[in-house]
Order: sequence, then C-alpha cells, then structure tokens
Amino acid sequence: MSRIAVLDSTLRDGAQGEGISFSVTDKLNIARTLDDLGVDIIEAGNPGSNPKDLDFFREAPGLELKSAILAAFGSTRRRGIKCEEDEGLKSLLSARTPVVVIFGKSWDLHVKQVLKASLEENLGMIRDTVAYLKAAGRRVIYDAEHFFDGYSADGDYAFSTLRAAAEAGAEWLVLCDTNGGNLPGRVGELTARVVKEFGMPVGIHTHNDSGLAVANSLAAVTAGATQIQGTLVGFGERCGNANLSTLTADIVLKLGLDCLRPDSLPKLSRATRRVAEIANFNFDEGLPYVGLRAFAHKGGMHVDAVSKTPISFEHVPPETVGNSRRILTSEVSGRSVILDRVRRLDPTATKESPLVAQVVDRLKEMERLGYQFEGAEASLELLMRKAAGKYKPFFELGRYRTIGEEPAEGRVSAQAMVKIRVDGEDAISAAEGDGPVNALDIALRKALEKFYPALASMRLIDYKVRVLDTNGATAASVRVLIESSDGESAWTTVGVSTDIIEASWLALVDSIEYKLIDDIERRYKAYM
Amino acid sequence: MSRIAVLDSTLRDGAQGEGISFSVTDKLNIARTLDDLGVDIIEAGNPGSNPKDLDFFREAPGLELKSAILAAFGSTRRRGIKCEEDEGLKSLLSARTPVVVIFGKSWDLHVKQVLKASLEENLGMIRDTVAYLKAAGRRVIYDAEHFFDGYSADGDYAFSTLRAAAEAGAEWLVLCDTNGGNLPGRVGELTARVVKEFGMPVGIHTHNDSGLAVANSLAAVTAGATQIQGTLVGFGERCGNANLSTLTADIVLKLGLDCLRPDSLPKLSRATRRVAEIANFNFDEGLPYVGLRAFAHKGGMHVDAVSKTPISFEHVPPETVGNSRRILTSEVSGRSVILDRVRRLDPTATKESPLVAQVVDRLKEMERLGYQFEGAEASLELLMRKAAGKYKPFFELGRYRTIGEEPAEGRVSAQAMVKIRVDGEDAISAAEGDGPVNALDIALRKALEKFYPALASMRLIDYKVRVLDTNGATAASVRVLIESSDGESAWTTVGVSTDIIEASWLALVDSIEYKLIDDIERRYKAYM
Repeated sequence: MSRIAVLDSTLRDGAQGEGISFSVTDKLNIARTLDDLGVDIIEAGNPGSNPKDLDFFREAPGLELKSAILAAFGSTRRRGIKCEEDEGLKSLLSARTPVVVIFGKSWDLHVKQVLKASLEENLGMIRDTVAYLKAAGRRVIYDAEHFFDGYSADGDYAFSTLRAAAEAGAEWLVLCDTNGGNLPGRVGELTARVVKEFGMPVGIHTHNDSGLAVANSLAAVTAGATQIQGTLVGFGERCGNANLSTLTADIVLKLGLDCLRPDSLPKLSRATRRVAEIANFNFDEGLPYVGLRAFAHKGGMHVDAVSKTPISFEHVPPETVGNSRRILTSEVSGRSVILDRVRRLDPTATKESPLVAQVVDRLKEMERLGYQFEGAEASLELLMRKAAGKYKPFFELGRYRTIGEEPAEGRVSAQAMVKIRVDGEDAISAAEGDGPVNALDIALRKALEKFYPALASMRLIDYKVRVLDTNGATAASVRVLIESSDGESAWTTVGVSTDIIEASWLALVDSIEYKLIDDIERRYKAYM
Repeated sequence: MSRIAVLDSTLRDGAQGEGISFSVTDKLNIARTLDDLGVDIIEAGNPGSNPKDLDFFREAPGLELKSAILAAFGSTRRRGIKCEEDEGLKSLLSARTPVVVIFGKSWDLHVKQVLKASLEENLGMIRDTVAYLKAAGRRVIYDAEHFFDGYSADGDYAFSTLRAAAEAGAEWLVLCDTNGGNLPGRVGELTARVVKEFGMPVGIHTHNDSGLAVANSLAAVTAGATQIQGTLVGFGERCGNANLSTLTADIVLKLGLDCLRPDSLPKLSRATRRVAEIANFNFDEGLPYVGLRAFAHKGGMHVDAVSKTPISFEHVPPETVGNSRRILTSEVSGRSVILDRVRRLDPTATKESPLVAQVVDRLKEMERLGYQFEGAEASLELLMRKAAGKYKPFFELGRYRTIGEEPAEGRVSAQAMVKIRVDGEDAISAAEGDGPVNALDIALRKALEKFYPALASMRLIDYKVRVLDTNGATAASVRVLIESSDGESAWTTVGVSTDIIEASWLALVDSIEYKLIDDIERRYKAYM
C-alpha cells in the first residue's frame, strides 16, 4: 500500500486567496506548524513572480525543519528564451530548495490564447525547463495546469505535455483541476488513465469552485494518485484549494491509507486553527473534523443518543483528530447534560437532585427571555452557582447613566457614570468612550480596579449583538455576547434586554464576576 | 430525463445548527425567499418536538406561496402507543401541511440502543405511522435515518425498513447519511441498489462531516435519486447539511439535469445571501458559485488571462448564478450592475457617464467603511440620488442627546432629546424609550411629524445589528439595518459607525428620507 505524500501550498496558492497576506514571520511560523504536523512538502512561494518570497527562503534554513522539505514554485521558461537567461528560473534556483514545482500548460486554449505560443513551442518549454532544473540538481514536481479541462479539449495534446515533462526527468506528474469545475467521476477516470500510461508517481491538485475539491482529490487517490496538493485551512484563489485538514483525515480514517505521520491526526485541529490565526482569518467553526461545531450536539434526541452511544451521531471519535465533543446546553438538551455540569459544583448530584431541577427550571426561564448559553459557558456557570447558592456578588450596582451626543467631540461620542458599592464602600467613576457601551465598560472597570486589581489584565476581545424578536423593532430584545480574555484564557458571557446598554451591562458584569471567581479558585483551589 | 426535486430544510435541520435561532417572522421571510427561488418543498419545522414551530404553520397560509409546498417533519410513533394517541403525530397533523416527512430508524444499533425497541417493533412503528398519515390525507416522504451506516451493519434489515415504509404508502424513500461519514462511491452504489430494488422515487439527504455532502448527493443523483435534501446556505447540525446553493448549481450546470425553475439560477446568489442575512449569520464569501470570492481574481496571471478569455479561469460564467466577476487589483468591478440602477434615475446614462463613475467611487468608499447595500436598497437609492445631485435633505440635525439609566423607571430606561431644523424653522422634542435607540427614534419622529404628517403611518419592523471588526470589542464598528413599513410597502436602510447609537441614527434618517421621497414621487409622479 502506497504512502500518500502531502504537499501544502498555504504559502503559495493560499497566499493568492482574497484577504490573505503573509509577512515573512507569518510564513516562518506557518512552515513550522506544517512541519510539526508532518506535512511532507511545503510549497513556500513563487520567487519568480513575487521577489519578496525570496526573503522567506533566505531565512528558511534557520527553521531546522524536522521532516518537511521546502519547494519553490514557478512556471516554464518564457517563449523564445533560453533557460539560462530566464529571470523566473534564475529566481527559482536562487531559492535553493531541494524540490521545485514547475507548472506548464496542458490546455491548447491556454497555449494559444494566453501564452500566445504554438503547441509545439509549449512542449519545448516544458521539456527544456524540467531538464534544466534537473541538471541543476533539483527534484522536479511537474504541475499540469488545467489538465482535466485540457484533456477534454484535446486529450492527445494534454498527454503529450505530460510526456514532455516525464521524459525530461520530472519525478511527479501532478494533475490540476485549476478552475475547480470537474466532477469526481471524470477526475478518477483520467487519473487512472495517466497512472496506467506513465507508470510513475502521480499527484492531484484541486480547487473548490464546485464544492468538490476534497471529493475530486479522494477520487484521484482511489484511482492511484500518491501525492495530494492543497492548503491546510483551504485558503486559495476564489473558493480555495482542497482543504487538507479534511482531506488528510478522510484519507487516513476513511480510505485507511498511510498519510502524514502516525502521530499527526491528533494535532490536526490545533494546527489548522493555528494557521488560520496566523493568517488573521476567522476560523470556520463548521469545518469538518477540526471546527468547534464538528462534534457539537444540539437537538434533544441527538444529545440523548450520543450520550448512550457516541457512534450514533459521530462518524469518528473526536479525539482522533484532536477535537472534542460539545453538548450545547439548551432547554432541549435535557437533564443528563445539565447533570454533567452540575457535578463540577457538587460531585454528589444525581439526575433526581433538586439542584438539577432548579438549574433546568432556571435555564428554561432564561431561555424564554431570549438567553442562549450555547456559546456563553461562563454565564452558564454563574447561573448554576446562583442556583446552588455558591455565589455572592462581588459588587452592588448603585446606578449608572450614559449620555450619547451628536455632534460628537472627535471619536468620543459618549460619557458614562457608574456608582458601585463593595463591602459597604462606595465608588463612583466616569469615563468617555466611543458610544455608550464602550464608555460604560471603561467606567465600570475603573471603579472596580481599586478593589480588584486583577481586572487590569482583562480585556474584551469580541462583542456581538443579535436582535431576538423583531416585532418591536428598536424596542425589540437584544442578546449581547461578550468574549473576554486575561491573556491566559478566554471566556464568553451573555446578557439580554430590550435596552442594548442594559444587555451589554449584564454581560459585562458576568464577565467580570467570572474572572474574579476563576482567580480565587485558582488561588485557593476550593472557593467555597 | 427526470426532474430533480429540491427539499430545503433550513427551517428544520438548519435550525438545529449551532447559533441559529429563527423568529416566526424570520421563518416566514425565509419561506418566501425559498419559494421565490423555486424550491419544491419547504420542510418548515418539527411541531412534535418544538411546539413553537406550530406558530409558523398557523401563519403560513398568509404567505400565498407561488409554487413551493410546505412539509412538517416528525418521527415514527412511539413504541407501544397507537398512532391515534401519539402526541407527536397529533402535533404533526395539526400543522395541516399537504406533505409530511417522517424519519425512521434503519440502523439496528439505533433501534436497540437508542430506541430500546426490538427490530420487529421498529418495522411496525414505521409501517403504522406511514399508513396512519397516508389515511389522514397526507403525502408522505420517508426519511431513512442512518441508511448507509445501517446498511453496512445489517443490509437486509435496512432494506426491510424501506420496504415497511414503501408498502405502507410512502411516496418517496429518502436515504440519509445522517452522520456524514460515508464516501461517494458507497453512496452511489447503495442508491443504485435501492432504485433498482424498489422502482419508486428515491431521495438523498447528506451531511458534511467528511466534507463530502455535495459529492455524496451528486453520486446519489447520478445513481438515480430524484430528490435532494439540504439547506440553501448549508446550515445544519455539526458541519451542516448539503449546501443547496452549490448542489443545485452543480446539478443544473454540471450534470445538465432539470432542477428548480428555468429562471432560478440567476437568483441563486441573492437568495442565498438573503437567507444568511435573515439568520444574522456571517456569509461565507468563499462559497462556491454564490460567494463574493467565487469569481474574484487576484493573481496577476489569472487577471490577465481571464480578461482575454473568461473560461481560462472560470468554470462557469458568473452571471448564470447571479454573481459577478471581481478583479481584486483593479477598479473595474461592478459597473454594469450600477449602470442598471443609475438608469432608473437617468435613463440616458451609459457605462462611460461620469455619474456611473461617481456612484462606483462612492460605493467603494462606503464599503470600505463597512457599509453593505445588498439588503439595503433604500440606502443605496439615496446614495445614488446624492451622487446625481437629485437629493435635498428634508431636515437638518441640530443636535441629539441620549441618556440611559439604571435602575430604570419601569420599562423606560432612556430619554432622548432631538433638535432639528426644517426650512429655517427649529423644532425640538424629547421622548422616553426602552433603551436609547428606541427613545431617539420616537423623539425624531415626534419632531418631524409637524412638518411631515405622513410619517405617522410609518413604523420600524426590524432592527439588526452586526459587529464588523472585532478587534476593538465594545468600540468595534457596527452595522445597523433597519426595515421600515408604512403599511403599503417595506424598505431597508443601513448605517455604520463605531457608536451603535450613531449607526442607528444614520439608518433611521435614511429610512425617513426614503419614505418622504417615495411619497412625493407617488403623489407628483416625477419628483424632480
């Protein structure tokens, strides 16, 4: 059984995606992450068309990669120019990578209309380029751009381009569905034909324009391809390249083939999230295998079944890919979920404990008001503590007042005043801000820091508003979710009110109280 | 050639997705959008497990759908209970839909461990339920839950569950990959077997846990399935259901089969975005066919080639699915679309008119600030009028001030003061409200009604807030969408600011001005 080699192109094809732009440091960090995951080849740039990519290759030796090999990417020599004189090939060689990936045209339309070359000239360009790089000591991967579309237009010609690359010494022939428009049946059929005809290693490179990048790659692997090309998070031109986090998991867990390293899959969720983070891209939590929602259960029947028999609603165990099961807490998720959480406060609780019933009742009441604790675990914990009597407030609100004004003075369009009381002592503070919620947030923490200096390390990292019931329009209920961090961990709280400021206030207070309880527990082990 | 029927389950399976929660108004709006797109069957809720879903079915007759049929969803009767006495089936019938979708167990593991029934009992439950609903005058779609996993565990039993449903009168047998873990080859093979064995209409219902929901559905359709089930935006438990915007486009454009209506595909991008907008979900711009990035070209060579020959890097023409090409590095995007709208103001405009260039520039500037006019046509029209010089303000703002307070007096937690000027005459007013935005809305209209009595008929019917850039948390930019109505028509406006009150103010002002222009135009036919 062949091993399936993985080429990740996050730093090259991925960088072509809209909104993606990597600094050299970003690139080095991504390369390190990919190496740690067990990727075989890191395609790290196109020095011919982006000279800045050479900065990365200059610094790359310092990475001391464990097992991954670096590759630079470029096109065949230009028409009518010798390889020795081609600037693109010079840049490519100056990247000093053991492997180079060269793409050439397979589709007669591209040769004639885009390259403006004759079909014979194009074959010469492929042949010369591969032979030249081979003679310069490089291992050559040949990417047959638009292979499937090219084959449909002129099959003999598409094959002759592969033959030119193979005869000149290419180590791999990689079939590309560059426009992402082909179907798995066709991709599998043509891959099998190339594998049979050439008897040498064949790879597959797909794009997701028809939502089939993963399926097309799997079809090619099933037909005998032994190298997959894609990007870990799925970044790439238009709808992106084949998502390698999905594809590698499918290959190992579904096809049962050898791919990455034996210890790789449990690192998959973390590595994928890390690359998205470096790219400063919102992670798609619905991603197969690695997203937060991939093993989240919400419907009552599903939750019940999965707690009896995990395989009833999970196609693979979440821990195989470094993910974990999440039971979304809602009125429909039932007692067993609540019990599980209540036990963290009271290990002796059973399904019949009055406490469990109290928490369920309270949850239902809150959900009727528009609360939703799915993403707001910190508020849920406070709710349970309150029901269990394991809570005392850290401060009392005396009064707050916000003032918004237009025209505003610069960016400061609001003021807030907050009066609180801690252990019998009053504190009052005021702050300006960009809108009343921002001003209120600053004023509240200003008043509290005197009593709780630890709050200085805390900051809000996300703020979301959703309107719940639109009948009342501007007086409809709003739900505010606030994510906070103290640099070590992050937590989310929720507040609901018809008044957006009050909803924000409720979530802010929960956020601060959660932080203080967490600190105390960490310091004293057992809080109460 | 068979027609492929489309069942959309956004309102049922989609609502099981994390973070999704629809109001009755949301549901009605989504149903309208799906009907307009040409979806055949709208699976709109599970009244047995969510009694709230009945509210939708009660109001649904008022929708006057053009061609879509509504379906309610539920499970087989409970074990040991007669259909007549089953609460779930009673709720299902009370939805009064022409079609019901019933799911039953195909997998022996689920029957024994989750249902705690015998294999024979389960067959009885399927048979009785289908026959009962049929006798009650319903058309029955039978969803064979976990069919593929069930077949792998015990093929004979899985087939006998289908037989029970078919013999009892089900009109369709729908094969479900409930856990999303199967591969296209397997799905195609088993679907072909069922089609051959039963000789009746077969459907396919897939989930995306392996990144293969679309590919698995296509494999089933190729094998003879003639109904696809999914959700337009891909919402659903865990990684979601088959994305119907991708799947229907693949079926029409790639398989060449008859699906939706002949005029549907050009509406696809807009309808998909609208459903995401109603769900208040960030739209995935990388979605095949319908995302903003689907036909966006960034790499220099791609841009060059696509301008010479679009098919060089586009698998289908973007306008077939109501999308458009975007060249990310240049300024030419969207002119023809804008031209179309500008012509409503100035019928003599051409692509080269300075006005078109001005509108494009202004749009780009606004979009950079976070505006999006997709769902806010009224604000877009005002923007164009301003660029065309066909606009004069109906009032000038002197100043507004809002005060929010806690503790509040009853439901009145805020006051607003507004000072405006109309034709040299000042007016000042104050109002109380539930939150500062509500108070501001009331105060502004109070001040204006003296000059524009027609505003008395206007009310806000929806108010949505989205945070755009989360780096600043409570000081991040927010986009407010306001939908207003005067009883005859409805319109939507947008405002963006870091201050939520100012963003709301901008959208409120647009809303009022749009109403006034519209009134004048209606009264005098031509306003200017």
